[in-house]
Amino acid sequence: MVALSRQSLPHDLIVIADPALLEERAERLGLPLAINEYPGGEDGGAHSPGRLTVLPVPMAAPVQPGRPDSANADYVLATLTRAVRGCLEGEFSAMVTAPVHKAAINRAGHRFTGHTEFIAAQCGAEPVMMLMNQRLRVALVTTHIPLRAVPDAVTPERLRHAAEVVDRDLRRLFGIATPRLLVCGLNPHAGEEGYLGREEKETLEPVLGELRAAGLDLVGPVPADTAFTPDSLRGVDAVIAMYHDQGLAPLKMQGFGETVNITLGLPVIRTSADHGTALELAGTGMARADSLLAAVDCAYRLSLQAG
Amino acid sequence: MVALSRQSLPHDLIVIADPALLEERAERLGLPLAINEYPGGEDGGAHSPGRLTVLPVPMAAPVQPGRPDSANADYVLATLTRAVRGCLEGEFSAMVTAPVHKAAINRAGHRFTGHTEFIAAQCGAEPVMMLMNQRLRVALVTTHIPLRAVPDAVTPERLRHAAEVVDRDLRRLFGIATPRLLVCGLNPHAGEEGYLGREEKETLEPVLGELRAAGLDLVGPVPADTAFTPDSLRGVDAVIAMYHDQGLAPLKMQGFGETVNITLGLPVIRTSADHGTALELAGTGMARADSLLAAVDCAYRLSLQAG
Repeated sequence: MVALSRQSLPHDLIVIADPALLEERAERLGLPLAINEYPGGEDGGAHSPGRLTVLPVPMAAPVQPGRPDSANADYVLATLTRAVRGCLEGEFSAMVTAPVHKAAINRAGHRFTGHTEFIAAQCGAEPVMMLMNQRLRVALVTTHIPLRAVPDAVTPERLRHAAEVVDRDLRRLFGIATPRLLVCGLNPHAGEEGYLGREEKETLEPVLGELRAAGLDLVGPVPADTAFTPDSLRGVDAVIAMYHDQGLAPLKMQGFGETVNITLGLPVIRTSADHGTALELAGTGMARADSLLAAVDCAYRLSLQAG
Repeated sequence: MVALSRQSLPHDLIVIADPALLEERAERLGLPLAINEYPGGEDGGAHSPGRLTVLPVPMAAPVQPGRPDSANADYVLATLTRAVRGCLEGEFSAMVTAPVHKAAINRAGHRFTGHTEFIAAQCGAEPVMMLMNQRLRVALVTTHIPLRAVPDAVTPERLRHAAEVVDRDLRRLFGIATPRLLVCGLNPHAGEEGYLGREEKETLEPVLGELRAAGLDLVGPVPADTAFTPDSLRGVDAVIAMYHDQGLAPLKMQGFGETVNITLGLPVIRTSADHGTALELAGTGMARADSLLAAVDCAYRLSLQAG
C-alpha cells in the first residue's frame, strides 16, 4: 500500500484501511507519508506522490508484519464490504484488492475461499475470474476448490455462464467486437475421444455447440497441454480454463508480476494483484508492487471503457 | 520417419516399420529413399542421408494417410514390442517412439493408455514420464488418466517412486550430482493450509519429509500456478508435477516442437516426440520433425552417458 503513496496517478485513489497501520508501516520503512482522511481529503481527480487518501476502518488487534491474526479477519472483510458498497452505489468507479490470507480468515470462523467469491456474494452475482497480462487473458470455470471437486463443478451451467460472461465483458470492457475464445478440455488430451474421460463429450462439446449456435466464436475443447503454445493462441482473445492451475500456471509462467486479476460478471469493476500475501516479505519494503500498480491502472482503464 | 532419411547422424538408426509404407510415403512426397533391410544393412556406426535401415514388420491393412485403421493396431504394438525386446537384450542402445493414435488401438480391443505405460509393462517396471526441453524438465506422478481419477492416484507409493526415480535417473543419465527437485501441490495454492484440499498435508508433506530424511533435495509442495516462474525455477533440475496438464501446459508453452519425452525408471532408454499424431498433416510433408529429431539426439546422448 505504501508503494501507492509514491506514485503520481491520473485519478483519485482511496485506500480503505486503518490509517494507524499505514503510518506504522511507513515509519518502519522510513518513508514519508501524509494521510488525508476520506471523505474530504481527495486530490480532486488525481493522485499526488507522498500522500494517501484513506477511508478509515479500525483494526481489532495490533498487527505484527508477516503474522496474520484471526482477530483482524472482520477488519479485512469490513474493508472489502465497504469497497463493494461504494462501487454499487456509484461512490467509487472501481475497486482494487490486495492479497488476503485466506487461512487466517477461515480460522476466525468465516467460510472464505477467496475475495472473488466474497465480493460476488455481496453483489448477488456469479463471478468469472479472469487473469491477464500483456500476452494473454485466461478465465476460469472453477476457481478456489480442491482438485477433487473440479470435475463435478464443471457443470453445463457454469461453463455456459463463464463463456457468456467472458464474451460479453470482452466486448463491454475491452471493446473487442467479436471475441474469440479458446476453451480447454478438462481431461488430458481433452479426453482423447472419451478414452481419458467423458466430460468433453458429455458436458463440454454439447455446451460449446449451443453457444456457437448462439453466435459465440469458440475454439475447443482443446488439449490443455498444447493450448498455450504461440500457434494455438494466434487470434485468440481469451482462454477459458476449467480449473485454477490449468489456466494460471501457463499464464503466470511468463508474465508473473505484471499479471492482473479481473472479476467479470459483476455489476462493479474489480481488479486485484495476482499474487499471494508473501508473508516473508511483509514489513521489509522488499515486496514488489508491480502487480498491484498494474491492477490499479487496469481498473482505471476499464472504468473509462465502461463509461 | 521420412525426415530421418535426410539427416546425417553420428550413430546407426534402425526404423521398425513396414518398408512398403515408408516407400509409398516417400514416393507420395517425391523424396528419394533407399531402404536397407535390417539386419545386414546398417551403416556401420553412422547414419547417412538418403538411406534408411528398416527392420521390417508387416502391416495388416493398407494405410490411408490421416485415417488410422484399427486393423493395424497389432502392427503398431508389434513394432513397439520388437523395439523393447531389442533394448532389453542389448541389441539396441535406446528406442525412440513416434506418436500413436490411442483411440484406434483401443477400438481394436486393447486397453492402451499410451506407449509409456505399454513399454513399461513389457519391461515389468513402473515408469516415470519426464518431458524436457532447453529450459525445463518436468516429471509426472500420474499420466494418462481422467482428471477425476488423479487425486486418488497420487498415492504415497507413486509420489515416492516418482521422486526416487527422477533423483536416481538425473544422476545416472544426466550426470547431475545432487538433483534439486521442485514438487507441485495437487490442489490450487498447494491446498492453502488445508482449506483447498487435504492431500498436501496428508500425502505430499509426509512423503517429502521421508525423502528429505533419505537425502533427496526437494522443494515443496509449492503452488503450481507460480511454480514455473523464473524465480521459482532458479537452481531447480526438474519439476515433479502431480498430473499431466499441470506440468505439461507450462512446459510446452515455450518449448513445444523441441520438447522430448523421456521414460525414466526403465531398464531401457526410451525417448519420444512430445506431440500427438497431427492426423491433418499426415502424408502432406508439412509435419515438423523437430521433436522427433530432438528425441533421437536425446536418446543417443543418454545412451552415451549411461555407458
